[in-house]
Amino acid sequence: MAKSPIFERVSLIGLGLIGSSLARVMRRDGLARHIAGCAKSEATRAKALELDLVDSVTADPAEAARGADLVVICTPLGTYAEIGAAIAPKLAPGVIVSDVGSVKGAAIRLLAPLMPEGVHLVPAHPVAGTEFSGPEAGFAELFAGRWCIITPPGGAAAARGPDPGAATAAPTPDNVAIERVAALWRNAGMQVEIMDAEHHDVVMAITSHVPHLIAYTIVGTATDLEAHLKSEVIKFSAAGFRDFTRIAASDPVMWRDIFLNNREAVLEALGRLTEDLTALQRAIRRGEGEILETLFTRTRAIRRSIIEAKQV
Amino acid sequence: MAKSPIFERVSLIGLGLIGSSLARVMRRDGLARHIAGCAKSEATRAKALELDLVDSVTADPAEAARGADLVVICTPLGTYAEIGAAIAPKLAPGVIVSDVGSVKGAAIRLLAPLMPEGVHLVPAHPVAGTEFSGPEAGFAELFAGRWCIITPPGGAAAARGPDPGAATAAPTPDNVAIERVAALWRNAGMQVEIMDAEHHDVVMAITSHVPHLIAYTIVGTATDLEAHLKSEVIKFSAAGFRDFTRIAASDPVMWRDIFLNNREAVLEALGRLTEDLTALQRAIRRGEGEILETLFTRTRAIRRSIIEAKQV
Repeated sequence: MAKSPIFERVSLIGLGLIGSSLARVMRRDGLARHIAGCAKSEATRAKALELDLVDSVTADPAEAARGADLVVICTPLGTYAEIGAAIAPKLAPGVIVSDVGSVKGAAIRLLAPLMPEGVHLVPAHPVAGTEFSGPEAGFAELFAGRWCIITPPGGAAAARGPDPGAATAAPTPDNVAIERVAALWRNAGMQVEIMDAEHHDVVMAITSHVPHLIAYTIVGTATDLEAHLKSEVIKFSAAGFRDFTRIAASDPVMWRDIFLNNREAVLEALGRLTEDLTALQRAIRRGEGEILETLFTRTRAIRRSIIEAKQV
Repeated sequence: MAKSPIFERVSLIGLGLIGSSLARVMRRDGLARHIAGCAKSEATRAKALELDLVDSVTADPAEAARGADLVVICTPLGTYAEIGAAIAPKLAPGVIVSDVGSVKGAAIRLLAPLMPEGVHLVPAHPVAGTEFSGPEAGFAELFAGRWCIITPPGGAAAARGPDPGAATAAPTPDNVAIERVAALWRNAGMQVEIMDAEHHDVVMAITSHVPHLIAYTIVGTATDLEAHLKSEVIKFSAAGFRDFTRIAASDPVMWRDIFLNNREAVLEALGRLTEDLTALQRAIRRGEGEILETLFTRTRAIRRSIIEAKQV
């Protein structure tokens, strides 16, 4: 259903899975009068026009950002510094710059110093995705029922209000900007949470980054097997391996940048994991069945909690 | 559609996910004149009768096995020795004893010495499953399109024929028994492969056992987090963690027994994995992005192979 536009001109820098899904949401609900897309690949630009995801498209972030009241960076973290520098001269006071990246400490570190006076940086992370990439992989329902985490550069305490119904406290210009970005993601069907960037990065290291690293490792170990064994691994993948390959099919550059930019939290979470794995390895070697059974029973309960939280 | 019975009396020892799914297949296709179920839990026995999965049901494996021409053990590996000893006196020459366990070396080691002269042991592993357990979790379509691996105690070479259309070579009594078990699983929609037990256990350590161990570890590490962080892990589980919780919700006793009974192959595969994980950890610590990106690109290709092999 068409709603009133909440933005005049939205610039989407990057039109992959997330950028193109957000474009579809804005199209569906009429949330922006003009969507200015930006993609470095000519094929992506052509596809975005063909799919009517954008009103205009360019390879130049500065051109896309000119005149926008909202710029959303939807590219891998490794591009943030260059894009930030390119768009900064085009940003008038009052403009909101947001992103959708998976590491918020790095987003702030890379973008905040580049933002001109009066520009509102509102880093956001819509926690949703699939293993597919590119503008044709997007869909408007991608975000429905999931969480979007906003990590204000000044920290969560200043922004988070005492009223649980509102995302923010006092209507300072920064908080108004946060509310506008929150409204966008709520339109996409997400629940919005305000969080400190550092805390976000620790939580994501555990829930997302280390699980992806492990999946990449398991699948990578299998790709190094001798050809005969490798073909059997594919043949019998329904036994468990298959689920890891879905995760390990995610965008390589995006994930490279996530690990490079959330190094400390990932290494910390990985350290906990390998300690626990070593303990299990010892239990198997020693034949300590009760240790295994106790753990396997505990982990079943977590699954139930996730089903109850409707995150399945 | 009803077919001719291929067995007179099938004894299913264990009526969990696999046993009850097999019962449903046999019911659907009329493959057995009588299905004699066996379950130690009274609730499972009552449920099996209520669902009309069996013609008779008992808590006593010996009673279930009496007069059967096929006995299929569908219980955790830790029960094999006791069940094998209980049923052995009831097995007439010509009877087939099979199982559905995930470690075939152990199945042979535990059962073969107990089998009376003339009884055919045909260890089988239908490579299919879900994270749910119990007789109500089963469904006849569970096996469709998946592989069933049969591991003859004498090795694959003697049983596997030169004709790729037939599973076996010369029609010795043992090979006829293998063909009859193969026919049962083909009726369930599976493709059948004959393999050495040791090789099966190595392949499954890689495709199934270690992935499950890792999933249990990741989810277990999260259950040990402080309460606040743990609730956030559940909340934001859609970021990757969720997929591991499904695997880590599998039956605890079954998986305990798998690890205890496939110790060497699991430790070997786990050793390869932790080496690779350590190398990735170092790449992250050193900021070696090209190592990460190269691996993440390779793993994407494996996913495509699995999709092409129709194992998704």
